[in-house]
Amino acid sequence: MQIAIQGVKGAFHEVAARNYFGNNIEILPKLHFSDLAESVKKGECDFGIMAVENTISGTIHANLNLIQEHKLVVCGEEYLRIKQNLVAKKACRIEDLTEVRSHYMAINQSRNFFKQHPNIQLIESVDTALSMKEIAENNLTNVGAIGSLLAAEYYNLDVLAESIETNRKNYTRFLILRRDHIWKKTTSNKASLALILDNHPGSLAEILSIIAAYQIDLSKIESVPLVGEPWHYRFYLDVLFDNKQDYQKMIAEIKNKLDQLDILGEYTSGNQSYSKIHNNGN
Amino acid sequence: MQIAIQGVKGAFHEVAARNYFGNNIEILPKLHFSDLAESVKKGECDFGIMAVENTISGTIHANLNLIQEHKLVVCGEEYLRIKQNLVAKKACRIEDLTEVRSHYMAINQSRNFFKQHPNIQLIESVDTALSMKEIAENNLTNVGAIGSLLAAEYYNLDVLAESIETNRKNYTRFLILRRDHIWKKTTSNKASLALILDNHPGSLAEILSIIAAYQIDLSKIESVPLVGEPWHYRFYLDVLFDNKQDYQKMIAEIKNKLDQLDILGEYTSGNQSYSKIHNNGN
Repeated sequence: MQIAIQGVKGAFHEVAARNYFGNNIEILPKLHFSDLAESVKKGECDFGIMAVENTISGTIHANLNLIQEHKLVVCGEEYLRIKQNLVAKKACRIEDLTEVRSHYMAINQSRNFFKQHPNIQLIESVDTALSMKEIAENNLTNVGAIGSLLAAEYYNLDVLAESIETNRKNYTRFLILRRDHIWKKTTSNKASLALILDNHPGSLAEILSIIAAYQIDLSKIESVPLVGEPWHYRFYLDVLFDNKQDYQKMIAEIKNKLDQLDILGEYTSGNQSYSKIHNNGN
Repeated sequence: MQIAIQGVKGAFHEVAARNYFGNNIEILPKLHFSDLAESVKKGECDFGIMAVENTISGTIHANLNLIQEHKLVVCGEEYLRIKQNLVAKKACRIEDLTEVRSHYMAINQSRNFFKQHPNIQLIESVDTALSMKEIAENNLTNVGAIGSLLAAEYYNLDVLAESIETNRKNYTRFLILRRDHIWKKTTSNKASLALILDNHPGSLAEILSIIAAYQIDLSKIESVPLVGEPWHYRFYLDVLFDNKQDYQKMIAEIKNKLDQLDILGEYTSGNQSYSKIHNNGN
Protein backbone atom coordinates (compact mmCIF):
# COMPACT_ATOMS: atom_id res chain seq x y z
CA MET A 1 0.00 0.00 0.00
CA GLN A 2 1.45 3.36 -1.04
CA ILE A 3 0.94 6.40 1.19
CA ALA A 4 1.85 9.91 0.02
CA ILE A 5 3.19 12.16 2.79
CA GLN A 6 4.40 15.75 3.03
CA GLY A 7 8.12 15.86 3.71
CA VAL A 8 10.97 13.43 3.12
CA LYS A 9 11.35 10.00 4.72
CA GLY A 10 11.15 10.22 8.52
CA ALA A 11 8.97 13.35 8.56
CA PHE A 12 6.20 13.51 11.17
CA HIS A 13 3.76 12.73 8.37
CA GLU A 14 5.41 9.32 8.08
CA VAL A 15 5.17 8.74 11.85
CA ALA A 16 1.44 9.55 11.70
CA ALA A 17 0.99 7.30 8.63
CA ARG A 18 2.63 4.35 10.44
CA ASN A 19 0.49 4.91 13.51
CA TYR A 20 -2.64 4.87 11.37
CA PHE A 21 -1.86 2.16 8.79
CA GLY A 22 0.78 0.08 10.57
CA ASN A 23 4.25 -0.65 9.20
CA ASN A 24 3.32 -2.59 6.09
CA ILE A 25 3.24 0.51 3.87
CA GLU A 26 5.39 2.19 1.28
CA ILE A 27 6.00 5.93 1.75
CA LEU A 28 5.80 8.34 -1.19
CA PRO A 29 7.48 11.61 -0.10
CA LYS A 30 6.16 14.93 -1.48
CA LEU A 31 7.88 18.17 -0.54
CA HIS A 32 4.83 20.45 -0.81
CA PHE A 33 1.22 20.01 0.28
CA SER A 34 0.02 20.85 -3.25
CA ASP A 35 2.14 17.98 -4.67
CA LEU A 36 0.62 15.68 -2.06
CA ALA A 37 -2.94 16.68 -3.07
CA GLU A 38 -2.05 16.19 -6.77
CA SER A 39 -0.61 12.75 -6.06
CA VAL A 40 -3.82 11.59 -4.36
CA LYS A 41 -5.95 13.16 -7.12
CA LYS A 42 -4.00 11.41 -9.89
CA GLY A 43 -4.25 8.06 -8.14
CA GLU A 44 -0.45 7.81 -7.88
CA CYS A 45 -0.86 6.44 -4.33
CA ASP A 46 -3.53 4.54 -2.39
CA PHE A 47 -3.91 7.17 0.31
CA GLY A 48 -2.48 10.52 1.28
CA ILE A 49 -1.98 11.87 4.78
CA MET A 50 -2.10 15.63 5.37
CA ALA A 51 -1.65 17.80 8.48
CA VAL A 52 -4.57 20.23 8.83
CA GLU A 53 -4.16 21.65 12.33
CA ASN A 54 -1.75 21.92 15.20
CA THR A 55 -2.34 22.99 18.80
CA ILE A 56 0.28 25.72 18.62
CA SER A 57 0.01 27.05 15.08
CA GLY A 58 -3.69 26.59 14.37
CA THR A 59 -5.50 25.41 11.25
CA ILE A 60 -3.80 25.35 7.86
CA HIS A 61 -6.70 26.77 5.86
CA ALA A 62 -4.78 26.31 2.62
CA ASN A 63 -4.80 22.55 3.20
CA LEU A 64 -8.56 22.44 3.80
CA ASN A 65 -8.90 24.38 0.55
CA LEU A 66 -6.64 21.88 -1.27
CA ILE A 67 -8.86 19.00 -0.11
CA GLN A 68 -12.02 20.83 -1.16
CA GLU A 69 -10.69 22.00 -4.54
CA HIS A 70 -9.21 18.62 -5.49
CA LYS A 71 -12.43 16.89 -4.37
CA LEU A 72 -10.42 14.46 -2.25
CA VAL A 73 -12.24 12.21 0.19
CA VAL A 74 -11.42 12.34 3.90
CA CYS A 75 -11.60 8.74 5.10
CA GLY A 76 -9.91 8.96 8.50
CA GLU A 77 -7.88 11.05 10.91
CA GLU A 78 -4.87 10.62 13.18
CA TYR A 79 -3.75 12.78 16.10
CA LEU A 80 -0.02 12.77 16.77
CA ARG A 81 1.74 14.18 19.79
CA ILE A 82 4.69 16.05 18.28
CA LYS A 83 7.90 15.29 20.15
CA GLN A 84 10.89 17.27 18.97
CA ASN A 85 14.36 15.81 19.40
CA LEU A 86 17.82 17.32 18.95
CA VAL A 87 20.01 15.05 16.84
CA ALA A 88 23.49 15.15 15.28
CA LYS A 89 26.18 12.92 13.77
CA LYS A 90 27.43 10.09 16.01
CA ALA A 91 29.90 11.21 18.70
CA CYS A 92 28.96 14.90 18.37
CA ARG A 93 28.30 16.64 21.65
CA ILE A 94 25.89 19.51 22.09
CA GLU A 95 28.89 21.77 22.86
CA ASP A 96 30.24 21.04 19.35
CA LEU A 97 27.18 22.42 17.58
CA THR A 98 27.37 25.89 16.04
CA GLU A 99 24.02 25.63 14.26
CA VAL A 100 20.80 23.64 14.35
CA ARG A 101 18.52 23.36 11.33
CA SER A 102 14.87 22.49 11.16
CA HIS A 103 11.47 23.55 9.94
CA TYR A 104 10.21 26.85 11.34
CA MET A 105 7.53 25.14 13.42
CA ALA A 106 9.97 22.72 15.04
CA ILE A 107 12.34 25.58 15.90
CA ASN A 108 9.46 27.60 17.26
CA GLN A 109 8.30 24.73 19.43
CA SER A 110 11.76 24.27 20.98
CA ARG A 111 12.92 27.83 21.69
CA ASN A 112 12.95 27.42 25.47
CA PHE A 113 15.41 24.54 25.22
CA PHE A 114 17.83 26.60 23.12
CA LYS A 115 17.80 29.49 25.58
CA GLN A 116 20.30 27.39 27.57
CA HIS A 117 22.49 27.16 24.44
CA PRO A 118 22.83 30.71 23.18
CA ASN A 119 25.87 29.85 21.03
CA ILE A 120 23.79 27.68 18.74
CA GLN A 121 22.35 29.49 15.73
CA LEU A 122 18.88 28.31 14.72
CA ILE A 123 18.45 28.04 10.94
CA GLU A 124 15.13 27.43 9.24
CA SER A 125 14.74 24.71 6.65
CA VAL A 126 11.94 23.32 4.49
CA ASP A 127 11.43 20.08 6.41
CA THR A 128 12.59 18.55 9.71
CA ALA A 129 13.67 15.25 8.17
CA LEU A 130 15.34 16.96 5.21
CA SER A 131 17.70 18.74 7.61
CA MET A 132 18.71 15.39 9.06
CA LYS A 133 19.25 13.99 5.58
CA GLU A 134 21.56 16.89 4.74
CA ILE A 135 23.62 16.36 7.90
CA ALA A 136 24.00 12.68 7.10
CA GLU A 137 24.78 13.09 3.40
CA ASN A 138 27.24 15.95 3.82
CA ASN A 139 28.73 14.56 7.02
CA LEU A 140 28.23 17.85 8.88
CA THR A 141 29.74 17.57 12.35
CA ASN A 142 28.94 21.02 13.76
CA VAL A 143 25.32 21.01 12.70
CA GLY A 144 22.33 19.56 14.54
CA ALA A 145 18.73 19.10 13.51
CA ILE A 146 15.35 18.93 15.24
CA GLY A 147 12.78 16.31 14.33
CA SER A 148 11.38 12.83 14.82
CA LEU A 149 13.16 9.80 16.30
CA LEU A 150 12.12 7.90 13.18
CA ALA A 151 14.12 10.29 10.98
CA ALA A 152 17.11 10.10 13.36
CA GLU A 153 17.06 6.34 12.93
CA TYR A 154 16.81 6.53 9.12
CA TYR A 155 19.75 8.91 8.81
CA ASN A 156 21.78 7.15 11.48
CA LEU A 157 22.06 10.17 13.78
CA ASP A 158 22.49 10.31 17.54
CA VAL A 159 19.81 11.78 19.79
CA LEU A 160 21.45 14.47 21.96
CA ALA A 161 18.26 15.54 23.71
CA GLU A 162 14.83 13.94 23.60
CA SER A 163 11.46 15.72 23.75
CA ILE A 164 12.79 19.29 23.72
CA GLU A 165 9.48 20.94 22.77
CA THR A 166 8.35 23.64 25.20
CA ASN A 167 4.71 22.58 25.29
CA ARG A 168 4.13 18.86 25.88
CA LYS A 169 0.49 19.12 24.81
CA ASN A 170 1.52 19.85 21.26
CA TYR A 171 -0.37 17.66 18.82
CA THR A 172 -1.06 17.72 15.10
CA ARG A 173 -4.19 16.43 13.44
CA PHE A 174 -3.70 14.60 10.15
CA LEU A 175 -6.43 13.66 7.69
CA ILE A 176 -6.30 10.46 5.66
CA LEU A 177 -7.20 11.23 2.05
CA ARG A 178 -8.38 9.14 -0.85
CA ARG A 179 -9.16 9.82 -4.47
CA ASP A 180 -12.78 8.85 -4.65
CA HIS A 181 -15.82 7.75 -2.71
CA ILE A 182 -15.72 4.07 -3.74
CA TRP A 183 -13.83 3.09 -0.60
CA LYS A 184 -16.06 3.40 2.41
CA LYS A 185 -15.59 2.29 5.97
CA THR A 186 -18.64 0.43 7.16
CA THR A 187 -18.98 2.66 10.18
CA SER A 188 -18.50 6.36 10.73
CA ASN A 189 -19.13 8.76 13.60
CA LYS A 190 -17.57 11.94 12.26
CA ALA A 191 -17.91 14.05 9.12
CA SER A 192 -16.01 17.00 7.65
CA LEU A 193 -18.22 19.48 5.79
CA ALA A 194 -17.51 22.55 3.69
CA LEU A 195 -20.41 24.89 3.20
CA ILE A 196 -21.24 28.26 1.72
CA LEU A 197 -24.13 30.07 3.33
CA ASP A 198 -27.00 31.84 1.83
CA ASN A 199 -25.72 35.31 2.79
CA HIS A 200 -28.13 36.78 5.37
CA PRO A 201 -27.57 37.57 9.05
CA GLY A 202 -28.35 34.58 11.19
CA SER A 203 -27.90 31.99 8.43
CA LEU A 204 -25.04 30.33 10.31
CA ALA A 205 -27.01 30.24 13.57
CA GLU A 206 -29.89 28.62 11.68
CA ILE A 207 -27.64 25.84 10.33
CA LEU A 208 -26.03 25.24 13.74
CA SER A 209 -29.45 25.07 15.39
CA ILE A 210 -30.48 22.30 13.00
CA ILE A 211 -27.27 20.41 13.75
CA ALA A 212 -27.86 20.80 17.49
CA ALA A 213 -31.50 19.73 17.19
CA TYR A 214 -30.28 16.32 15.99
CA GLN A 215 -27.95 16.10 19.04
CA ILE A 216 -24.95 16.30 16.77
CA ASP A 217 -21.79 17.81 18.25
CA LEU A 218 -19.70 20.40 16.49
CA SER A 219 -16.00 19.66 17.06
CA LYS A 220 -14.61 22.36 14.80
CA ILE A 221 -15.70 25.46 12.91
CA GLU A 222 -13.63 27.76 10.73
CA SER A 223 -14.60 30.58 8.40
CA VAL A 224 -12.34 31.03 5.39
CA PRO A 225 -12.87 34.10 3.20
CA LEU A 226 -13.64 33.27 -0.44
CA VAL A 227 -10.83 34.81 -2.47
CA GLY A 228 -12.15 37.66 -4.61
CA GLU A 229 -15.56 37.72 -2.91
CA PRO A 230 -15.50 40.27 -0.08
CA TRP A 231 -17.53 39.35 3.02
CA HIS A 232 -18.33 35.93 1.67
CA TYR A 233 -17.01 32.84 3.45
CA ARG A 234 -16.67 29.12 3.21
CA PHE A 235 -17.21 27.40 6.56
CA TYR A 236 -15.41 24.21 7.46
CA LEU A 237 -17.26 22.18 10.09
CA ASP A 238 -16.50 18.86 11.75
CA VAL A 239 -19.44 17.08 13.32
CA LEU A 240 -19.57 14.06 15.64
CA PHE A 241 -22.61 11.78 15.74
CA ASP A 242 -23.72 8.53 17.39
CA ASN A 243 -26.60 7.87 15.07
CA LYS A 244 -25.83 7.84 11.35
CA GLN A 245 -29.50 8.17 10.38
CA ASP A 246 -29.87 11.36 12.39
CA TYR A 247 -26.75 12.67 10.69
CA GLN A 248 -28.20 11.90 7.28
CA LYS A 249 -31.48 13.62 8.14
CA MET A 250 -29.55 16.64 9.33
CA ILE A 251 -27.61 16.78 6.04
CA ALA A 252 -30.84 16.59 4.03
CA GLU A 253 -32.33 19.43 6.07
CA ILE A 254 -29.39 21.84 5.88
CA LYS A 255 -28.69 21.13 2.19
CA ASN A 256 -31.67 23.19 0.99
CA LYS A 257 -30.67 26.14 3.11
CA LEU A 258 -27.14 26.41 1.74
CA ASP A 259 -25.63 27.85 -1.42
CA GLN A 260 -23.15 24.97 -1.50
CA LEU A 261 -22.50 21.87 0.57
CA ASP A 262 -19.51 19.56 0.09
CA ILE A 263 -19.19 16.50 2.28
CA LEU A 264 -15.41 16.14 2.43
CA GLY A 265 -15.75 12.78 4.11
CA GLU A 266 -17.47 10.56 6.67
CA TYR A 267 -15.12 8.53 8.84
CA THR A 268 -14.30 7.11 12.24
CA SER A 269 -13.02 9.80 14.58
CA GLY A 270 -9.42 9.63 15.75
CA ASN A 271 -10.71 9.92 19.29
CA GLN A 272 -8.49 7.05 20.43
CA SER A 273 -5.21 8.60 19.35
CA TYR A 274 -6.38 11.96 20.70
CA SER A 275 -7.35 10.57 24.13
CA LYS A 276 -4.06 8.69 24.36
CA ILE A 277 -2.16 11.95 23.94
CA HIS A 278 -4.17 13.76 26.56
CA ASN A 279 -4.18 11.01 29.15
CA ASN A 280 -0.57 9.90 28.99
CA GLY A 281 0.92 13.27 28.29
CA ASN A 282 3.97 11.54 26.91
CA MET B 1 4.89 57.46 18.11
CA GLN B 2 6.57 54.06 18.42
CA ILE B 3 5.05 51.03 16.65
CA ALA B 4 6.32 47.50 17.31
CA ILE B 5 6.26 45.24 14.24
CA GLN B 6 7.16 41.64 13.51
CA GLY B 7 10.21 41.45 11.25
CA VAL B 8 13.08 43.82 10.52
CA LYS B 9 12.78 47.25 8.88
CA GLY B 10 10.92 47.05 5.57
CA ALA B 11 8.88 43.97 6.52
CA PHE B 12 5.25 43.88 5.39
CA HIS B 13 4.30 44.70 8.97
CA GLU B 14 5.98 48.07 8.50
CA VAL B 15 4.13 48.68 5.21
CA ALA B 16 0.82 47.95 6.98
CA ALA B 17 1.82 50.18 9.93
CA ARG B 18 2.57 53.12 7.60
CA ASN B 19 -0.73 52.62 5.77
CA TYR B 20 -2.58 52.72 9.07
CA PHE B 21 -0.68 55.39 11.03
CA GLY B 22 0.95 57.44 8.27
CA ASN B 23 4.67 58.07 7.96
CA ASN B 24 5.24 60.01 11.17
CA ILE B 25 6.07 56.88 13.20
CA GLU B 26 9.12 55.15 14.59
CA ILE B 27 9.38 51.41 13.91
CA LEU B 28 10.42 48.98 16.67
CA PRO B 29 11.38 45.70 14.96
CA LYS B 30 10.73 42.38 16.77
CA LEU B 31 11.80 39.11 15.19
CA HIS B 32 9.13 36.91 16.79
CA PHE B 33 5.43 37.41 17.40
CA SER B 34 5.89 36.58 21.08
CA ASP B 35 8.47 39.38 21.42
CA LEU B 36 6.01 41.73 19.73
CA ALA B 37 3.24 40.82 22.20
CA GLU B 38 5.67 41.26 25.14
CA SER B 39 6.72 44.67 23.86
CA VAL B 40 3.12 45.91 23.74
CA LYS B 41 2.39 44.36 27.14
CA LYS B 42 5.40 46.05 28.78
CA GLY B 43 4.48 49.42 27.30
CA GLU B 44 7.78 49.60 25.41
CA CYS B 45 5.87 50.99 22.40
CA ASP B 46 2.66 52.98 21.83
CA PHE B 47 1.08 50.36 19.57
CA GLY B 48 1.88 46.99 18.09
CA ILE B 49 0.74 45.65 14.72
CA MET B 50 0.30 41.90 14.25
CA ALA B 51 -0.71 39.74 11.28
CA VAL B 52 -3.54 37.38 12.25
CA GLU B 53 -4.77 35.98 8.94
CA ASN B 54 -3.86 35.67 5.31
CA THR B 55 -6.00 34.64 2.34
CA ILE B 56 -3.63 31.85 1.34
CA SER B 57 -2.37 30.50 4.64
CA GLY B 58 -5.35 31.04 6.94
CA THR B 59 -5.57 32.24 10.51
CA ILE B 60 -2.55 32.24 12.81
CA HIS B 61 -4.31 30.86 15.89
CA ALA B 62 -1.15 31.26 17.95
CA ASN B 63 -1.34 35.02 17.42
CA LEU B 64 -4.97 35.22 18.54
CA ASN B 65 -3.88 33.28 21.63
CA LEU B 66 -1.00 35.72 22.24
CA ILE B 67 -3.43 38.65 22.17
CA GLN B 68 -5.86 36.88 24.50
CA GLU B 69 -3.20 35.66 26.96
CA HIS B 70 -1.38 39.01 27.15
CA LYS B 71 -4.72 40.80 27.55
CA LEU B 72 -3.80 43.20 24.75
CA VAL B 73 -6.46 45.51 23.35
CA VAL B 74 -7.35 45.40 19.66
CA CYS B 75 -7.97 49.01 18.64
CA GLY B 76 -7.96 48.78 14.86
CA GLU B 77 -7.24 46.64 11.81
CA GLU B 78 -5.52 47.02 8.45
CA TYR B 79 -5.84 44.86 5.33
CA LEU B 80 -2.79 44.80 3.10
CA ARG B 81 -2.57 43.37 -0.38
CA ILE B 82 0.70 41.42 -0.32
CA LYS B 83 2.77 42.11 -3.42
CA GLN B 84 5.94 40.06 -3.65
CA ASN B 85 8.91 41.44 -5.58
CA LEU B 86 12.17 39.83 -6.67
CA VAL B 87 15.12 42.05 -5.76
CA ALA B 88 18.92 41.87 -5.88
CA LYS B 89 22.06 44.03 -5.73
CA LYS B 90 22.25 46.83 -8.30
CA ALA B 91 23.27 45.66 -11.79
CA CYS B 92 22.50 42.00 -11.07
CA ARG B 93 20.43 40.28 -13.71
CA ILE B 94 17.99 37.47 -13.04
CA GLU B 95 20.30 35.14 -15.02
CA ASP B 96 23.06 35.81 -12.47
CA LEU B 97 21.07 34.51 -9.53
CA THR B 98 21.83 31.04 -8.18
CA GLU B 99 19.62 31.36 -5.13
CA VAL B 100 16.73 33.43 -3.80
CA ARG B 101 16.03 33.75 -0.09
CA SER B 102 12.83 34.70 1.65
CA HIS B 103 10.28 33.72 4.24
CA TYR B 104 8.47 30.46 3.58
CA MET B 105 5.18 32.24 2.87
CA ALA B 106 6.72 34.61 0.32
CA ILE B 107 8.40 31.70 -1.48
CA ASN B 108 5.18 29.74 -1.43
CA GLN B 109 3.25 32.65 -2.89
CA SER B 110 5.69 33.04 -5.80
CA ARG B 111 6.34 29.46 -6.92
CA ASN B 112 4.71 29.87 -10.34
CA PHE B 113 7.10 32.68 -11.21
CA PHE B 114 10.14 30.57 -10.37
CA LYS B 115 8.99 27.68 -12.55
CA GLN B 116 10.42 29.74 -15.44
CA HIS B 117 13.75 29.91 -13.59
CA PRO B 118 14.52 26.33 -12.59
CA ASN B 119 18.21 27.11 -11.98
CA ILE B 120 17.40 29.33 -9.02
CA GLN B 121 17.39 27.55 -5.69
CA LEU B 122 14.73 28.81 -3.26
CA ILE B 123 16.02 29.07 0.32
CA GLU B 124 13.79 29.76 3.31
CA SER B 125 14.65 32.48 5.79
CA VAL B 126 13.10 33.94 8.94
CA ASP B 127 11.88 37.19 7.41
CA THR B 128 11.51 38.69 3.92
CA ALA B 129 13.23 41.97 4.81
CA LEU B 130 15.99 40.20 6.75
CA SER B 131 17.02 38.37 3.57
CA MET B 132 17.36 41.72 1.80
CA LYS B 133 19.39 43.09 4.69
CA GLU B 134 21.79 40.12 4.45
CA ILE B 135 22.26 40.62 0.71
CA ALA B 136 23.03 44.30 1.23
CA GLU B 137 25.36 43.85 4.22
CA ASN B 138 27.30 40.92 2.77
CA ASN B 139 27.28 42.29 -0.77
CA LEU B 140 25.93 39.02 -2.19
CA THR B 141 25.77 39.27 -5.99
CA ASN B 142 24.36 35.85 -6.86
CA VAL B 143 21.58 35.95 -4.33
CA GLY B 144 18.13 37.48 -4.69
CA ALA B 145 15.34 38.02 -2.17
CA ILE B 146 11.55 38.26 -2.25
CA GLY B 147 9.71 40.96 -0.32
CA SER B 148 8.31 44.47 -0.18
CA LEU B 149 9.31 47.46 -2.30
CA LEU B 150 9.80 49.37 0.95
CA ALA B 151 12.51 46.92 2.07
CA ALA B 152 14.16 47.06 -1.38
CA GLU B 153 14.38 50.82 -1.00
CA TYR B 154 15.81 50.61 2.55
CA TYR B 155 18.54 48.17 1.53
CA ASN B 156 19.22 49.89 -1.77
CA LEU B 157 18.41 46.87 -3.94
CA ASP B 158 17.15 46.73 -7.51
CA VAL B 159 13.73 45.34 -8.35
CA LEU B 160 14.19 42.63 -10.99
CA ALA B 161 10.52 41.63 -11.16
CA GLU B 162 7.53 43.31 -9.56
CA SER B 163 4.39 41.61 -8.22
CA ILE B 164 5.51 38.01 -8.76
CA GLU B 165 2.93 36.43 -6.44
CA THR B 166 0.78 33.78 -8.11
CA ASN B 167 -2.49 34.93 -6.61
CA ARG B 168 -3.22 38.66 -6.89
CA LYS B 169 -6.02 38.46 -4.35
CA ASN B 170 -3.56 37.71 -1.59
CA TYR B 171 -4.13 39.93 1.43
CA THR B 172 -3.11 39.87 5.06
CA ARG B 173 -5.17 41.20 7.94
CA PHE B 174 -3.23 43.00 10.67
CA LEU B 175 -4.57 43.97 14.09
CA ILE B 176 -3.50 47.17 15.83
CA LEU B 177 -2.72 46.39 19.46
CA ARG B 178 -2.48 48.48 22.57
CA ARG B 179 -1.57 47.78 26.17
CA ASP B 180 -4.75 48.83 27.92
CA HIS B 181 -8.30 50.01 27.53
CA ILE B 182 -7.68 53.67 28.42
CA TRP B 183 -7.32 54.63 24.77
CA LYS B 184 -10.66 54.38 23.02
CA LYS B 185 -11.77 55.53 19.63
CA THR B 186 -15.00 57.47 19.89
CA THR B 187 -16.71 55.28 17.32
CA SER B 188 -16.59 51.58 16.61
CA ASN B 189 -18.48 49.20 14.34
CA LYS B 190 -16.55 46.00 14.86
CA ALA B 191 -15.52 43.86 17.83
CA SER B 192 -13.25 40.86 18.33
CA LEU B 193 -14.46 38.43 20.97
CA ALA B 194 -12.97 35.32 22.57
CA LEU B 195 -15.41 33.03 24.27
CA ILE B 196 -15.57 29.69 26.00
CA LEU B 197 -18.93 27.95 25.83
CA ASP B 198 -20.89 26.24 28.44
CA ASN B 199 -20.22 22.75 27.02
CA HIS B 200 -23.55 21.35 25.78
CA PRO B 201 -24.69 20.57 22.21
CA GLY B 202 -26.28 23.59 20.63
CA SER B 203 -24.61 26.15 22.89
CA LEU B 204 -22.81 27.77 19.96
CA ALA B 205 -26.01 27.92 17.89
CA GLU B 206 -27.72 29.59 20.85
CA ILE B 207 -25.05 32.31 21.07
CA LEU B 208 -25.09 32.90 17.30
CA SER B 209 -28.89 33.15 17.33
CA ILE B 210 -28.71 35.93 19.90
CA ILE B 211 -26.09 37.74 17.81
CA ALA B 212 -28.29 37.41 14.70
CA ALA B 213 -31.40 38.56 16.57
CA TYR B 214 -29.70 41.92 17.11
CA GLN B 215 -28.96 42.12 13.34
CA ILE B 216 -25.25 41.82 14.07
CA ASP B 217 -23.11 40.25 11.35
CA LEU B 218 -20.51 37.62 12.03
CA SER B 219 -17.44 38.26 9.89
CA LYS B 220 -15.26 35.51 11.31
CA ILE B 221 -15.48 32.44 13.51
CA GLU B 222 -12.71 30.07 14.56
CA SER B 223 -12.61 27.26 17.09
CA VAL B 224 -9.27 26.76 18.80
CA PRO B 225 -8.82 23.68 20.99
CA LEU B 226 -7.89 24.51 24.59
CA VAL B 227 -4.51 22.91 25.19
CA GLY B 228 -4.82 20.08 27.69
CA GLU B 229 -8.62 20.10 27.69
CA PRO B 230 -9.86 17.59 25.13
CA TRP B 231 -13.03 18.52 23.21
CA HIS B 232 -13.09 21.96 24.79
CA TYR B 233 -12.63 25.01 22.61
CA ARG B 234 -12.15 28.74 22.65
CA PHE B 235 -14.07 30.48 19.89
CA TYR B 236 -12.78 33.65 18.27
CA LEU B 237 -15.56 35.73 16.70
CA ASP B 238 -15.53 39.03 14.87
CA VAL B 239 -18.82 40.90 14.74
CA LEU B 240 -19.89 43.93 12.70
CA PHE B 241 -22.59 46.28 13.95
CA ASP B 242 -24.24 49.57 12.92
CA ASN B 243 -25.79 50.27 16.28
CA LYS B 244 -23.48 50.29 19.28
CA GLN B 245 -26.35 50.01 21.77
CA ASP B 246 -27.64 46.83 20.12
CA TYR B 247 -24.12 45.46 20.29
CA GLN B 248 -23.91 46.24 24.00
CA LYS B 249 -27.27 44.61 24.67
CA MET B 250 -26.13 41.54 22.76
CA ILE B 251 -22.94 41.35 24.87
CA ALA B 252 -24.96 41.60 28.10
CA GLU B 253 -27.25 38.82 26.92
CA ILE B 254 -24.58 36.31 25.81
CA LYS B 255 -22.32 36.97 28.81
CA ASN B 256 -24.51 35.00 31.21
CA LYS B 257 -24.63 32.02 28.90
CA LEU B 258 -20.85 31.69 28.56
CA ASP B 259 -18.14 30.19 30.74
CA GLN B 260 -15.80 33.00 29.71
CA LEU B 261 -16.06 36.12 27.57
CA ASP B 262 -13.11 38.34 26.66
CA ILE B 263 -13.72 41.40 24.54
CA LEU B 264 -10.38 41.67 22.75
CA GLY B 265 -11.33 45.05 21.38
CA GLU B 266 -13.95 47.32 19.82
CA TYR B 267 -12.76 49.33 16.84
CA THR B 268 -13.50 50.74 13.41
CA SER B 269 -13.43 48.03 10.76
CA GLY B 270 -10.72 48.15 8.13
CA ASN B 271 -13.45 47.91 5.52
CA GLN B 272 -11.89 50.73 3.49
CA SER B 273 -8.51 49.08 3.01
CA TYR B 274 -10.25 45.76 2.33
CA SER B 275 -12.58 47.19 -0.32
CA LYS B 276 -9.70 49.00 -2.02
CA ILE B 277 -7.88 45.68 -2.46
CA HIS B 278 -10.90 43.94 -3.92
CA ASN B 279 -11.99 46.68 -6.26
CA ASN B 280 -8.66 47.71 -7.72
CA GLY B 281 -7.08 44.30 -7.71
CA ASN B 282 -3.70 45.95 -7.98
